[in-house]
Amino acid sequence: MENEFKNQIFHRGIELPKAIADHFTGKAYFNQLVEGGNDWNCPVGYVTFQPGCRNFWHRHPGGQILLVTEGNGWYQEWGQEARYLNPGDVVMIPSGAKHWHGASKDSWFAHIYIETNSDMGSVEWLEEVSEEQYSAL
Amino acid sequence: MENEFKNQIFHRGIELPKAIADHFTGKAYFNQLVEGGNDWNCPVGYVTFQPGCRNFWHRHPGGQILLVTEGNGWYQEWGQEARYLNPGDVVMIPSGAKHWHGASKDSWFAHIYIETNSDMGSVEWLEEVSEEQYSAL
Repeated sequence: MENEFKNQIFHRGIELPKAIADHFTGKAYFNQLVEGGNDWNCPVGYVTFQPGCRNFWHRHPGGQILLVTEGNGWYQEWGQEARYLNPGDVVMIPSGAKHWHGASKDSWFAHIYIETNSDMGSVEWLEEVSEEQYSAL
Repeated sequence: MENEFKNQIFHRGIELPKAIADHFTGKAYFNQLVEGGNDWNCPVGYVTFQPGCRNFWHRHPGGQILLVTEGNGWYQEWGQEARYLNPGDVVMIPSGAKHWHGASKDSWFAHIYIETNSDMGSVEWLEEVSEEQYSAL
């Protein structure tokens, strides 16, 4: 297991609540930077993944934007090659696209997420990214 | 003049185009991370201010969110005390609120901005933050 980040931009926050952790493989942390349901209508959060941690396949009805801040990880859309991520990378997740994201095997990983068009509905969780899929990266 | 950041999360980008630079005191750099006018409808950018640089008073019809990533700076709403900003700070700028933001006198400063409710209209630029206002901070 690699060292954690010495300095993260945002506070790492809490371990994922169980209702979300149930859709992750491995341990991640969560800091809600901007709540939804207000005049801005644009929930923003910060997620920190331990090495090897990733979320299950899922969909966002209104899409999502990821801004990679620390470490290295992966983003993959169903039926496409996984994209290796570095700090500074921006990921535009299309509305309804089945995808997952998470850390690489040997690095912690953190990103900001921006929930776009949040009035179109909330995340739809699907099946786990299997060890075979992940270890083949 | 202090040293610049050794490592910025995002590429610093270009010097502000003249149409925007005309509403800034001092020099700033700009990297458009996410364009507007697409399915996400949520423009995102990254602005880096030299020490002493700040924008003029302005308003966003749909509000704006700032995520401070590096350095130290200020955010002020009209008629209120200026708020000193550190990395990790989140600023929620209300719809229509007259405000400015920028670097402190002796520090470079960088933030992400998220344009919310962008269909409500674009920025309205107002008068400069005077040297008296700024130097009194």
